[in-house]
Amino acid sequence: MVERLDAGARAELPARLPEWRVLPERDAIRREFRFRDFNAAWGFMSRVALLAEAQDHHPEWSNVYNRVEITLTTHDAGGLSARDLRLALAIDAL
Amino acid sequence: MVERLDAGARAELPARLPEWRVLPERDAIRREFRFRDFNAAWGFMSRVALLAEAQDHHPEWSNVYNRVEITLTTHDAGGLSARDLRLALAIDAL
Repeated sequence: MVERLDAGARAELPARLPEWRVLPERDAIRREFRFRDFNAAWGFMSRVALLAEAQDHHPEWSNVYNRVEITLTTHDAGGLSARDLRLALAIDAL
Repeated sequence: MVERLDAGARAELPARLPEWRVLPERDAIRREFRFRDFNAAWGFMSRVALLAEAQDHHPEWSNVYNRVEITLTTHDAGGLSARDLRLALAIDAL
C-alpha cells in the first residue's frame, strides 16, 4: 500500500513544484505545457512516457496539438503520494 | 477552408466507422481503446502520432494507463470534415 503525502510534504508542494497546482476537486496535481507544434509536444510526451515506465507510475494526460495537460495522482493510495512528487520532479527536469 | 461533412457523408458514418460515436455536445467523433498495459497503449499512440503528422491532422486525445480516448474534429471547419473520416479510417486500420 502506498501512503498518501503527509501534511509536511503537502506544505512543501508549492515550493518544490511551483508549476503544478493541486486540484480542488481531487487529490491530484496538474500542469499544462505548451509547445511550438504537435511534433514538439509529442517529443516531450515520448520522454514522459519513458519516465513513467521507468518509475512504473503513469500519468493521466491529454494532448491537443501543441498543448499537453498532465495530471498526477496515485490510485493505489487514493490520492497524492511520493510517487507523484517523484514523477513531477522528473518531468520538470526534462 | 475545409468543408464540413454533408448529410450524405454523415448518414454513412455508422457503417464506415461503427466503433466511433458522434458526440451529442459537439460536432466530433470519439472512440475509446483499451490495451493490455501502458506499454501497449503507448505503442498504439505512437502509431497514431505518425499518422497524424503524415495527414497533418491531429487528434484530441487522452490516456490513462491502458486506456486511450481519441476525439476527432476539424477546428478549421468548425466540425467534422473529410479529414476526420480519413484519420479515423487510418486509425481503425492499425
